Amino acid sequence: MPGGTDQTLRPFLWRAANLYSDTEIVSRNHDGMQRYTYSEYEDRTSRLANALDEYGIEEGDRVGTFCWNHSRHFETYFAVPSIGAQLHTINPLLPDAHIQYIVDNADDRLIFVDQSLAPKLASAVADADGDEFADVEFVVMGSEESEHLEATPYESFIDGQDTDYDWPDIDEEQPAGMCYTSGTTGNPKGVEYTQQMLWGHTMATLTPQGIPMADDDVVMPVVPMFHVNAWGMPFSATAGGSKQVFPGPSPEPEDIASLIENEGVTISAGVPTVWLGLMEYCSEHEVDLSTLETVIVGGSAAPKSMIEWFDDQGVEVLHAWGMTEMSPIGSVSHLKSDLQDADYDTQLEKRGKQGLMVPGLEFKVIDENDEEIAWDGEEFGELWVRGPWVTKEYFKRPEANETDFEDGWLKTGDVVTVDEDGYIQIVDREKDVIKSGGEWISSVELENAVMAHDDVAEAAVVGVPHERWQERPVAFVVPGEGVDRGTLVPEINEMLADEYPKWWLPDEIEFIEEVPKTATGKFSKKDIREEYADQSLVEGQVPEDAAPDRD
Amino acid sequence: MPGGTDQTLRPFLWRAANLYSDTEIVSRNHDGMQRYTYSEYEDRTSRLANALDEYGIEEGDRVGTFCWNHSRHFETYFAVPSIGAQLHTINPLLPDAHIQYIVDNADDRLIFVDQSLAPKLASAVADADGDEFADVEFVVMGSEESEHLEATPYESFIDGQDTDYDWPDIDEEQPAGMCYTSGTTGNPKGVEYTQQMLWGHTMATLTPQGIPMADDDVVMPVVPMFHVNAWGMPFSATAGGSKQVFPGPSPEPEDIASLIENEGVTISAGVPTVWLGLMEYCSEHEVDLSTLETVIVGGSAAPKSMIEWFDDQGVEVLHAWGMTEMSPIGSVSHLKSDLQDADYDTQLEKRGKQGLMVPGLEFKVIDENDEEIAWDGEEFGELWVRGPWVTKEYFKRPEANETDFEDGWLKTGDVVTVDEDGYIQIVDREKDVIKSGGEWISSVELENAVMAHDDVAEAAVVGVPHERWQERPVAFVVPGEGVDRGTLVPEINEMLADEYPKWWLPDEIEFIEEVPKTATGKFSKKDIREEYADQSLVEGQVPEDAAPDRD
Repeated sequence: MPGGTDQTLRPFLWRAANLYSDTEIVSRNHDGMQRYTYSEYEDRTSRLANALDEYGIEEGDRVGTFCWNHSRHFETYFAVPSIGAQLHTINPLLPDAHIQYIVDNADDRLIFVDQSLAPKLASAVADADGDEFADVEFVVMGSEESEHLEATPYESFIDGQDTDYDWPDIDEEQPAGMCYTSGTTGNPKGVEYTQQMLWGHTMATLTPQGIPMADDDVVMPVVPMFHVNAWGMPFSATAGGSKQVFPGPSPEPEDIASLIENEGVTISAGVPTVWLGLMEYCSEHEVDLSTLETVIVGGSAAPKSMIEWFDDQGVEVLHAWGMTEMSPIGSVSHLKSDLQDADYDTQLEKRGKQGLMVPGLEFKVIDENDEEIAWDGEEFGELWVRGPWVTKEYFKRPEANETDFEDGWLKTGDVVTVDEDGYIQIVDREKDVIKSGGEWISSVELENAVMAHDDVAEAAVVGVPHERWQERPVAFVVPGEGVDRGTLVPEINEMLADEYPKWWLPDEIEFIEEVPKTATGKFSKKDIREEYADQSLVEGQVPEDAAPDRD
Repeated sequence: MPGGTDQTLRPFLWRAANLYSDTEIVSRNHDGMQRYTYSEYEDRTSRLANALDEYGIEEGDRVGTFCWNHSRHFETYFAVPSIGAQLHTINPLLPDAHIQYIVDNADDRLIFVDQSLAPKLASAVADADGDEFADVEFVVMGSEESEHLEATPYESFIDGQDTDYDWPDIDEEQPAGMCYTSGTTGNPKGVEYTQQMLWGHTMATLTPQGIPMADDDVVMPVVPMFHVNAWGMPFSATAGGSKQVFPGPSPEPEDIASLIENEGVTISAGVPTVWLGLMEYCSEHEVDLSTLETVIVGGSAAPKSMIEWFDDQGVEVLHAWGMTEMSPIGSVSHLKSDLQDADYDTQLEKRGKQGLMVPGLEFKVIDENDEEIAWDGEEFGELWVRGPWVTKEYFKRPEANETDFEDGWLKTGDVVTVDEDGYIQIVDREKDVIKSGGEWISSVELENAVMAHDDVAEAAVVGVPHERWQERPVAFVVPGEGVDRGTLVPEINEMLADEYPKWWLPDEIEFIEEVPKTATGKFSKKDIREEYADQSLVEGQVPEDAAPDRD
């Protein structure tokens, strides 16, 4: 059989550790700043691999992480997949019930957890109805034990292990990573990333059409490493031999600003909320952004005002679009060469779109009549994508696999236009998830919870634009007949607070007479948004230019 | 099974034809300049695919090309692999016997041949001993028939075919390309390129560590498209959405200069001989090289004087190293970021080396004691490489597969040092092929041919540095006892001229008393080169700075 060796992640580590042995990895850890080289990183990663072996982790086992962005988390990124196991990054901001579900669904054997997140995980463990955590053990990141969980400290876990490891040859179809996506209905759906998917994603994102990184770059992913591998940046930065900077637990704008200044960050990435925070911080403090060349904005649309602000600082904003199902990068809004001479407004309009699909992917846009739309920036339909790093199925979810995939295409659920230049723009979405500070809130789940109150006849929850968080949930409630509206609002709030994290709770609860419906009787979120967009509760809070483009 | 869709070439064409439909492909064809867009390219490629279907080419069939660099040849690059067949690019500069061997070995069903190369192919066909060409038909590039071969004109072949084609889903392990490498002994060895190998090579070469190309680039491969897919540039330029320029049959320095000027070429690639020709041309003519940004030099080492000359023009020379077995790119001599401040001589020294291995590959260097060498720029050993676009076997050559591969590693036969920065430098080679103007001449084959003369006792052929051609063969002959040396030289020359192309013939034939031998009794080429390096025949002809670094 002709063909080369399998496409796996480990040679990226080999390259960095050998060609860039002295290049630094800098991390704001729970226990202080950590600063070491790729050579030391390789040693510690090998020690972790030996520790995982000794613990009994075998090929195909799933190992969870419940962590922010830091160097120890990064060590799991290469160690776990490169021994043939699967790295399952768990989003610690999910409600307990979702955490319980996904640990059970993924059958994690071991979970690495941050000190600061141990209480949250302990709560999910304590509240578990069944045996979701029965076979799971914990390693807490750092040198200290946890007060909240029975867990081995990470430094004890790897202590005394050999700094060499005889890495096995791994099949490229071996699952190497895993991440759950929050849908609108039901439980989160797991997406597995094979070695090959992560390899292809790494290479494709390093091209000029993606997010190229080289040995003169200093790369800082602010996007959490529990969000689809921080958009793959820890892998691509390693392959490119870049210095890496990890901003640690719950980074504040001040932390981000000082890391950019002190470490000479050239490329960073995060959701708009992160950059709005930095912009606000810079308006009140003297911050030197002179090393910064590129800011990747994703998760929600990049407001034009943000692109302009960074342009003024000499920093290029690249708007990237992707999905958990796509490992995650799909398109990047590079300005095409023949638009370099266009007027600034035209350029801004193009750069604010979801962008141009990177090499290796294909897409088509299917309208309600199952026809492909014209690329005229006006017709719209559902975006379908396929490619080597686009999943073809969800993990153990046959019912979703029936509806969300067709002939190898992923039906994204996003409704888009495509203009004459090939730029994709999301104009609506079938899924009505609410994107709040880079996190997704299921509107349908909140609606169902609100409607569980006896005095509620109907309720719809939609995301409304929010300057800092992009979107916040607002509940529109039709009360039952004769209900005391004065007591209903606090009752609903109290009920939701019992079940959901604080950031899931609607900012406002408004009474309406009826929830508008579509022809098929479904709630029409689009109509709600249009009808109530100028409601006094929302009006005036949201400068138009800070709102996401999508709605 | 998780995982994305297969890695195949066709989505690169899809991307260019849709996102860059108006971007040009310009070609110096036999029948004049051709200029069309990616959109028209896709139409013609689809017509070719339909024609191949109609002709009866099926999945797995091999289709040969015997062509220079031009747009019709480029059409075969996507059409043949994307219907599931295999594109076998035949080197038209090989001796007839090699052409006969590889067409037979590859079992080509159809060969596309240039008008200018039809006489050469016709000669190989006419001289064939057996039925090597019995099942092969020919298509001649252009609108006219050939006087030399019974062949369908290309334009008639695709005439009337539909501009749409229902491209099949192709397995990434399907062989998509094929190229033969001339070894030191025996017949050329075939290397098959799967869809996946070409996909991975395309992506890896688009990274900043390779040869990045974007939509503001104008890419002109001077390296022939019969040499490992012109180093993959037609694929990577398409994936990157670049304008492409093909310099056509036997391009002279004048052709290259005018294409750079007229088409605004930004990236070009070729062997040193090409660039020496351009440098000489520029010394006598006014040539505007202002658009040119990058010149890729490969096939032989880039002389420092060449790097300096291009530096003076504001053009970056990137020295790239690869092998037919590696699809072909292995390393590129980018200057590392921490060498940006080094003095110019140090930079030149680094840039003149074979360079840094691109992401995705691994190498090791094994000395005579089977130990890995130190990376100190002094110890040396044989270079072993592996990776997703490095072949793991030769086509139908079990005996070579036994010796040239081990545990998934390709033993390159090149002897190298690696310095502290990880730059590879070839210092010698086990294979003693002679590199003449970017073509390889088998020294062993010439030796055997010379030794076939009854009056020759022993003979060794080595490559000696040559200003224009990099190397030229010189034969060192031990005559039999009492032989008339005066008549022997013309007799040998006449004998070789019957069998080999003119450019294979040794520039000089010298008499020696004995061929130096290694411990195991093999000819020691290294000793010959050292002992006779200062022979008057060679001395003085070769300015040191124009000679390859390798010897």
